[in-house]
Amino acid sequence: MWAGRFQESTHELLQEYTDSLDCDKEFYAQDIQCSRAHARMLAKQGILQESEVERILSGLDQIAEEIQQGIFPWRRELEDVHMNIEQRLTELIGELGQKLHTGRSRNDQVAADFRLFVAQGTQAWSQGLLQLIQGLLEKAQEHSRTLLPGYTHLQPAQPVTLAQHLLAYLQMFKRDYERLQESQKRIQVSPLGAAALAGTTYSLDPEYTAAQIGFPEAFANSMDAVSDRDFVLEALFNGSLIMVHLSRLCEEIILWANPGFGFVQLPDAFSTGSSIMPQKKNPDLAELMRGRTGRAYGALMGMLTMLKAQPLAYNRDLQEDKPYFLELDRTVFSSLQVMSRLIKALKFDPQNMRQAVLDGYLNATELADYLVLKGLPFRQAHYVTGQTVAYAEKQAKPLEELSLEEFQEFSPLVEADVYKVLDYETAVARRDCPGGTGYASVQYQLAKGWTFLQQHMENIGGSV
Amino acid sequence: MWAGRFQESTHELLQEYTDSLDCDKEFYAQDIQCSRAHARMLAKQGILQESEVERILSGLDQIAEEIQQGIFPWRRELEDVHMNIEQRLTELIGELGQKLHTGRSRNDQVAADFRLFVAQGTQAWSQGLLQLIQGLLEKAQEHSRTLLPGYTHLQPAQPVTLAQHLLAYLQMFKRDYERLQESQKRIQVSPLGAAALAGTTYSLDPEYTAAQIGFPEAFANSMDAVSDRDFVLEALFNGSLIMVHLSRLCEEIILWANPGFGFVQLPDAFSTGSSIMPQKKNPDLAELMRGRTGRAYGALMGMLTMLKAQPLAYNRDLQEDKPYFLELDRTVFSSLQVMSRLIKALKFDPQNMRQAVLDGYLNATELADYLVLKGLPFRQAHYVTGQTVAYAEKQAKPLEELSLEEFQEFSPLVEADVYKVLDYETAVARRDCPGGTGYASVQYQLAKGWTFLQQHMENIGGSV
Amino acid sequence: MWAGRFQESTHELLQEYTDSLDCDKEFYAQDIQCSRAHARMLAKQGILQESEVERILSGLDQIAEEIQQGIFPWRRELEDVHMNIEQRLTELIGELGQKLHTGRSRNDQVAADFRLFVAQGTQAWSQGLLQLIQGLLEKAQEHSRTLLPGYTHLQPAQPVTLAQHLLAYLQMFKRDYERLQESQKRIQVSPLGAAALAGTTYSLDPEYTAAQIGFPEAFANSMDAVSDRDFVLEALFNGSLIMVHLSRLCEEIILWANPGFGFVQLPDAFSTGSSIMPQKKNPDLAELMRGRTGRAYGALMGMLTMLKAQPLAYNRDLQEDKPYFLELDRTVFSSLQVMSRLIKALKFDPQNMRQAVLDGYLNATELADYLVLKGLPFRQAHYVTGQTVAYAEKQAKPLEELSLEEFQEFSPLVEADVYKVLDYETAVARRDCPGGTGYASVQYQLAKGWTFLQQHMENIGGSV
Amino acid sequence: MWAGRFQESTHELLQEYTDSLDCDKEFYAQDIQCSRAHARMLAKQGILQESEVERILSGLDQIAEEIQQGIFPWRRELEDVHMNIEQRLTELIGELGQKLHTGRSRNDQVAADFRLFVAQGTQAWSQGLLQLIQGLLEKAQEHSRTLLPGYTHLQPAQPVTLAQHLLAYLQMFKRDYERLQESQKRIQVSPLGAAALAGTTYSLDPEYTAAQIGFPEAFANSMDAVSDRDFVLEALFNGSLIMVHLSRLCEEIILWANPGFGFVQLPDAFSTGSSIMPQKKNPDLAELMRGRTGRAYGALMGMLTMLKAQPLAYNRDLQEDKPYFLELDRTVFSSLQVMSRLIKALKFDPQNMRQAVLDGYLNATELADYLVLKGLPFRQAHYVTGQTVAYAEKQAKPLEELSLEEFQEFSPLVEADVYKVLDYETAVARRDCPGGTGYASVQYQLAKGWTFLQQHMENIGGSV
Repeated sequence: MWAGRFQESTHELLQEYTDSLDCDKEFYAQDIQCSRAHARMLAKQGILQESEVERILSGLDQIAEEIQQGIFPWRRELEDVHMNIEQRLTELIGELGQKLHTGRSRNDQVAADFRLFVAQGTQAWSQGLLQLIQGLLEKAQEHSRTLLPGYTHLQPAQPVTLAQHLLAYLQMFKRDYERLQESQKRIQVSPLGAAALAGTTYSLDPEYTAAQIGFPEAFANSMDAVSDRDFVLEALFNGSLIMVHLSRLCEEIILWANPGFGFVQLPDAFSTGSSIMPQKKNPDLAELMRGRTGRAYGALMGMLTMLKAQPLAYNRDLQEDKPYFLELDRTVFSSLQVMSRLIKALKFDPQNMRQAVLDGYLNATELADYLVLKGLPFRQAHYVTGQTVAYAEKQAKPLEELSLEEFQEFSPLVEADVYKVLDYETAVARRDCPGGTGYASVQYQLAKGWTFLQQHMENIGGSV
Repeated sequence: MWAGRFQESTHELLQEYTDSLDCDKEFYAQDIQCSRAHARMLAKQGILQESEVERILSGLDQIAEEIQQGIFPWRRELEDVHMNIEQRLTELIGELGQKLHTGRSRNDQVAADFRLFVAQGTQAWSQGLLQLIQGLLEKAQEHSRTLLPGYTHLQPAQPVTLAQHLLAYLQMFKRDYERLQESQKRIQVSPLGAAALAGTTYSLDPEYTAAQIGFPEAFANSMDAVSDRDFVLEALFNGSLIMVHLSRLCEEIILWANPGFGFVQLPDAFSTGSSIMPQKKNPDLAELMRGRTGRAYGALMGMLTMLKAQPLAYNRDLQEDKPYFLELDRTVFSSLQVMSRLIKALKFDPQNMRQAVLDGYLNATELADYLVLKGLPFRQAHYVTGQTVAYAEKQAKPLEELSLEEFQEFSPLVEADVYKVLDYETAVARRDCPGGTGYASVQYQLAKGWTFLQQHMENIGGSV
Repeated sequence: MWAGRFQESTHELLQEYTDSLDCDKEFYAQDIQCSRAHARMLAKQGILQESEVERILSGLDQIAEEIQQGIFPWRRELEDVHMNIEQRLTELIGELGQKLHTGRSRNDQVAADFRLFVAQGTQAWSQGLLQLIQGLLEKAQEHSRTLLPGYTHLQPAQPVTLAQHLLAYLQMFKRDYERLQESQKRIQVSPLGAAALAGTTYSLDPEYTAAQIGFPEAFANSMDAVSDRDFVLEALFNGSLIMVHLSRLCEEIILWANPGFGFVQLPDAFSTGSSIMPQKKNPDLAELMRGRTGRAYGALMGMLTMLKAQPLAYNRDLQEDKPYFLELDRTVFSSLQVMSRLIKALKFDPQNMRQAVLDGYLNATELADYLVLKGLPFRQAHYVTGQTVAYAEKQAKPLEELSLEEFQEFSPLVEADVYKVLDYETAVARRDCPGGTGYASVQYQLAKGWTFLQQHMENIGGSV
Repeated sequence: MWAGRFQESTHELLQEYTDSLDCDKEFYAQDIQCSRAHARMLAKQGILQESEVERILSGLDQIAEEIQQGIFPWRRELEDVHMNIEQRLTELIGELGQKLHTGRSRNDQVAADFRLFVAQGTQAWSQGLLQLIQGLLEKAQEHSRTLLPGYTHLQPAQPVTLAQHLLAYLQMFKRDYERLQESQKRIQVSPLGAAALAGTTYSLDPEYTAAQIGFPEAFANSMDAVSDRDFVLEALFNGSLIMVHLSRLCEEIILWANPGFGFVQLPDAFSTGSSIMPQKKNPDLAELMRGRTGRAYGALMGMLTMLKAQPLAYNRDLQEDKPYFLELDRTVFSSLQVMSRLIKALKFDPQNMRQAVLDGYLNATELADYLVLKGLPFRQAHYVTGQTVAYAEKQAKPLEELSLEEFQEFSPLVEADVYKVLDYETAVARRDCPGGTGYASVQYQLAKGWTFLQQHMENIGGSV
C-alpha cells in the first residue's frame, strides 16, 4: 500500500518538506500591510523617493486585489508568501520592486507579519469572549431565581440559582479577556528594522514603521526581535485557558442533557439525532468542543517543545510557529462562536432542576447554621444535623416535613422558626453577602457584568 | 479586521464545526476495503445473496475509480466520507445499496477504517526506518576507521569511530522498528460486528470479516471495540519516539556543520544558502525536523487529553483522533524519507574530526587504564593521570610527546610501552569487547545490522 | 517573605541544585545488586581474584544490611548513592574497594541500576493490573445478567449487561499488561561494560554480567548504552495509558454515584462523607485518581522534553529521568492497588439501572432490526421506527405497551411476534455473536478472562 | 521483589492515597495568616466578640511558634494542615477554637491559603528575575565592545557585540517579570467568604478579609471562588516561559564551553571536572537547568490535564494543584538563583570570539549594503557580493585583503572607501539605529536596563 509513497524524487521531497506556502498564504494581507508601512518609512527617511514609494504602494494594492480575486499567480517554487509577493511586485513595477527590501530582511519581515496576524486573531477571540459573556448574562438574567443543586464532588451540596452557576463562567471568560488584552502590549511590538539579526546600517525609524501598522512600540533589541516567539506562546496559553473553560461548560451541558439530570434540552439545530431514537439528542457540539481542548494543549506543548534550548538568533525551527497558532486560532475562534450561540439556544428545565434540589436534603446546611446561631459550636451543630438527616432519611421524608418534636429529639434548641430557615428560596436568599448565590448578590453581579460588557464592546471596536 | 469573521450563519457555522469530510476523505480507500469485507461476510453468512453482494462490490469498484479519477461528486452536506460513499452506492445500484449497512453501525465502521489506515501508515514508517538504517549502515561502513571525539557533556571525552557513533542511532531506530511491529497486533483488530456499541442481532462472523481486511483478529468486546483508541495513542507515542531520535541526530548535524566543529559538509541539495554569503550553508532540513518534534509531542499530548476520563462507549470527542494521526503521519513519514536521503548525502570531514581528537587529551583514560594494569588502584591511577595531563597542558604538548622521564616523575610505573597505549588508533582498537568502539566490535555490529536489515526488508514487504 | 530564601551561600546552592541523593537513595538495592554482578564477572574473567571478590561481596552485604537497618552513614557531600556506597566499601574492606570500579564508569553503572529499578517497578504494575482484572472478572461474573443502559454521547442507546460494560475495561487493562510485558525486553538490557561511552579496554564479559542481574541481554553499542533512556519513556507512556483507562473508570464511578444515576453505592471505607449531610458520599478516591492522570501525562511530557535534541552521549540532563519515573511509579502502583480494592467493594444497584433502561426507549433498535428482517431496507426501517417511537412518546407509553394496531399504523409488516423482540432480556440475549453483550458471549468472555488471568499470575510470579 | 509492596492494609492504603499533609504542611504560615484575617473580620462584623478573637489570635500565635520550633504535634490521621491547626487550636483555647470556622469552609480556606502562597512564590521569582537582569547588565557593560559572531541557523552571519547578545536575554526576562506582575491581580483575589460553594448566611465582609491578607480584591462569585485554579495555571505557564529562556541561555553556555567554540570558561565552582582529564570542565549546572525545563512543561501539562472538563464547583481532583506548583516553584526559584550567580561568574574569551568573527566572512553584508548605497538594487548587490566572496574564498583571503582591482572585477562601483566599510568595528558601529548592535544603541539599551532595574527593585521590595 505504502510503496507508492516512496517514489517521490529527492528534489520534490525536500521542497515539500520545507515549503510553507499553504500555511503562510493566510498572512498575505499582513505581509502587504507591513510592506506598506516599511515603504512609507523609507520615504519619510529619504531612503526612497516619494514617487518611488507611490509606485510601490500602488503595486502592492494591485497584488492585494489579485489575491482577493483569486487570480494571483502563486508559484510554489518561490517557497513562501513573501517571495511570491516580492517577485510579483518586480514584475509589476520593475527593478524598483526590489528596493522595497532595503533595510529589511526575511527575518524581521516574517516576525512582523506574524505579530500582526496574532494581534488581529487574539482580538477576534476577545470579541468572541464578549459575545459569549453577553449570552451568559442574558441566560443568567432569565434564570436569576431558578434553583438547581450546587454540586461538590458531583454530589448535591447546597441549592444555588442557575444565574449564580452561569455567572461563575462569566468570571472565567472575563479573566480570559483581560489576559488577552494585557498580552497585546507584548504582541504589538514591531520588529521591523531588526533586519537579519543585528539591525541595519540604513538610517531607519522603527518607531515610525511601528506606528504605521498600528503598533505602539518598536523592538528594543534586534537579536531578540527576530527570535522572540514568546508572544505566540502567550497566545497559545491564553487560547488553552479559554478551551479549559469551554470544556468545563461543555461537560456540564453533556451531563445536564443526560436524562438522569434532565436539566437542559438541546435545540435541534445544536444537536444530532439518531434516526431510530427520536428522543435521543446527542450533544455533539459540546462533545467535539470538549475534545478539541486537546488541540489547544497539543499546540501549546508543541510550541514549548520547539522553543526549548534554541540558541540565538533565528533558527529554521521557528517556521513551525505558524501551524500551531493557525490551528489554535481556528479552534478557539470557532468554539467561541459556537458556544455563544449554543448558550443562548439552551432550554433549561426548571422543573427537573427543582426536583433534584428537593431530592437531595440540600437544606441540611441551613439547619446546621440555624443551630450555630442558636449558640451551638459549629462542629457540634454539624453533628446534630447529621443525626437529624439520617433520621429523616429513614422516614423517607424531607427535612422540612419533620415535626417540631422530631427535631427537638436531636436538639432542644430547635423552635418553630426552623421551618422558615429550611425553605429553599429562603436558603438561597439569605446567601446575600457579596459574591454569594443570594438574589441581591446575583443582581449585583448581573449589573456589574453588563457594565463590563458595554465598556469593552466599545473599546475593542476600534482596536488593531 | 475580524468583523467579517462573525457573519457566518448559525447553520453554516455548526456544519463547519462538526464537519470531518476534508480529513476523512483520506480514508476513502480503507472505507471501501472494509465495506467489501463486510459485504463478503454478509454473503457468506447468507444475510445477503451472492448476486446482491456482486452488485455491491461492483458499485464500490466504480466509486473507487470515480474518486481516483477525481470525478466523485463529494457532497459536504453529507458530512463524512462514509455517508458520501453510501449515498453514491445507492444512486448507482438502487435500494440494495442500503443493505450494505446491515449489521453495521457508523461506530464500528469508522473504527475499522481508521485501524486499517493506521496499520498501513505505521507499516510505511517501518519501511522508512529500514531505509534509514540502511543509510546509517552504509555510512558507518564507509567510516569504520574514521575517528572523532566521543563527547559527554558536549566536552571531548574519548576517541570513538564515526561508525560507532552512527551505529548508536541504528540501535535507536531498531527499537522504534520493533515497537511498531509489536503494536500491529493491537492495531490490527477488526471492530466490525460491534455495531453501535452492543453487538448485533444478525448472525455475523467477525473473524471472517477481519480476515478479509487482512487482520489476524476480531474484537473481543463490543463496547471496547467502538471506543478503543489506544492503538492511535500507541502510534502517536511510537511516532514521537522516532522524532526524539531524529531530533538528536539533527542536533548533531547542526552542531557538526558549525565551523567550530566542521565535521560535516551539507550537500547543496540539502541545505539553503544565503545569497550574500556563499560559504554559508544553513542546515534548514535538520532544523525543521528538530522543530517538528514538537508536532509529534503536541499530537500525543492532544490525544491523551482528549481520551482522559471518557465514559463508555462512543463519544463524539473521538472524532478528533484523526487529525492527530494524520498530522503525525505526515511528519514522521516525510522526516524518515528526508533523513534517509540526507544521511547518505552527508560528506564527513575526517581531517577536522581527527584534529578535534588531537586537541583534546583524549588519550588520558588510556594512561589511567595503563597504570591500573601496572597495579595502581583505580582512583589513584586517575589522580596520577590528572597530574600528568595538567603538566602536559602547561608545556602545551600532547601526552604522547612527553618524555619517559617526565612521565616517571608522576609515577615510576610508567615504562616505554606507554607510547603504544597512547596512540589513538590503538586506544580505539583496544575497546574491542562486545559493543565497544573497537574495530572488531564495529565490524560485528555492522554484520548484525545488515542481517537485521535483510530479514526485515523481506518480512515487511508482504505485510498489510 | 521571600527575602530569607536568598541567603543561601553559593556553594550550598550549587550542591543543592545538582544533588540527587534523596532521589537515588531509593535505588540502593539495585546499585548493590549490579555491583555484585560486576564483581562476579571480574572474577570470572580473572581481572580480580576470587578471594578479592569474596571480600567485596561480603562488604556489599554489610552495606545492604546497614541501609536496611537505617544505620548507614549517608553523606550528602558524596552527592549520590553510588559514591556513598563505594566510599563505605573502601572504609570496610580497604583499598580493594576501589577495584570494584575496574572496567566500569558512573555512566554505565547509573544506567544499569535504573534499568533494574524500572524493570522491577513495571513488573509490580503488571501484578497490579492482574489484580484489577481479577476484580473486574469477579464483579462481571456477579452481574452477568444485570442490565443497564449502554450509552453513546452519554445518552442511553441500547441495553447492555453490566458484565459487558466491565469486561470492556478488562480489555483495556489486558492491553496494558501485554504492552508492559513486551517492554521488558527493551528494559532488561544490561549496559554494564559500556563504561564512560566507548567501552573498555578490560576483557569484560557483558553477557555474563547481564545474566547475573537476571537480564537476558547486554548492550549492543556502548554510546547508545550510556545515553539510551527510551525504556523510561516507554514505561512513562505505558503508565500514562494505564492512567487513561483508570480515569475513564473513575469518571463512570463518579457519574454512577451521582443521585441522577444512582447506579452504585460507595462503601464507607472508600468515600468521604460530609459531617452535615450523611446521605452525601463523596467519591474522593475516584476523583483523586482521575486528577492524577495529569501526573502521568506531565511526567511523560517532561521526559520527552528533556530528551529532545540531546547530542550523544551522556549529558547531565539525563539525571532528570529518575524523578519522573519515581513520581509515576508511585502514582500508577498505588492507583492500581486502590482501584482493584475499590472495584471489588462497589455495590451496584440493579433496580436503579433497570429503571434507567425502562425510561429510555432502549428497545427502539430492536424494532428497526425486526423490520429489516421482515424485508424493509435498513434506512426505511429506521424511519418507521422513529415515527413509532415519537408516537409512543406522545402517548407516554413504552414501546412494548403499544397495541398491534398502533404498530401497524406505521408499518403493516409488524406482527404479534414483535413483543418478544421488544423484551429487554431478549434484546440482550440476541446480541450473542462473538464480543456482543449477549449472555453467551459474556460467558465466553468471562471464561477467556479467567484463563488469561491464571496463565499470567503464574508467569509473572517468577520474573525479575 | 514487588511482593512486599502489596501487603499494606486497605485502610492504610486509602489514607496514604488521599493524604496531603506532607505537601500542604508547607502552607502552614499562609493558613495561619488567613485564619487571623478571618478572625479579625468576624470581630469587626460582631459575629465573634473582640475578646474571643484575641484568644483565637494568641492561640494561632502559639501554634505558629510551635511549628517553627519543630515541636508541633502533627497528626497524620487529621489528614491535612488545616485540620491539624484547627484541632490544636481547640486543645489550646477550648471550644472557642471551633468558632473560628464560622462562615468558612474547607473549600474557601484551602483556596485562600494557596493563593497567598502562590502570590509570595511568584514574587520571589520576580526578585530572582531582577537579580538575573542585574547580572546580565553587569556582564553586558563589561563587554559592550567585545565582538562575537551573531549566528542564524547556528551559522555565523554578522558580527555583534556580546552586550547586544546578552541584552537580548534581558528583554526575555523583562517580559517574564512583567507577566508575573500582571498576574498578581488575578492571584491576589481572596476567596474567603465563598464558604463551601454558595456563600454564607453570616453577614461577612469579604473585602475586609481580603485587605487583612494584603489582597486588593475579594471574589466576585462564590462558585468560581472555590473552583478557580486559573491563577495556578498562569503561574505554571509563566514559570515555564522563564525556563524556556533559561534553557536557551544554558544551551549557549554549553555550546560556548565546547572547545570548538571556546568562547567561555566555566569557573570551578560552577562546573564539575573529571579526575582524569583536568582540562575537562563539564557545564553540569547549565545541563541540569536545561533538563529541568521538562519539569516546568510537565507541571503545566499535568495541571491543564487535571482541569479539563471539570464540572462546578469543587472536585477532589483540585487537591492536585499543589504538588505541581511546589515542584515548579522549587525549580524556577533555584534556577534563577543559580543562573544569576553563574552569569556573573562566567569568564568570556574575547580572543576566541574575535577569531571566530575573522574566520567567517562576516562582513559580506557590509559589502552588499555598500553596493546598494552606490545605487545597485538590493538583489543585484547581493549577487555581486556572493561572487566576490566566492572568489575570496578560493584565494583563501578575507574580503578585507582583496585589492581594489579584484573588487572592481565584480563591480565597478567599488571604490577605495570600501575598506572602511569592511572593518568589523565599523560594521558594528554603523548598526546604530534603535535596537541594533551598534555601540550607541547598546549604551542606550544599557541605560534603559539600569533604570528599569532600579525602579522595580524598589517596587517589589514592599509587595505581598
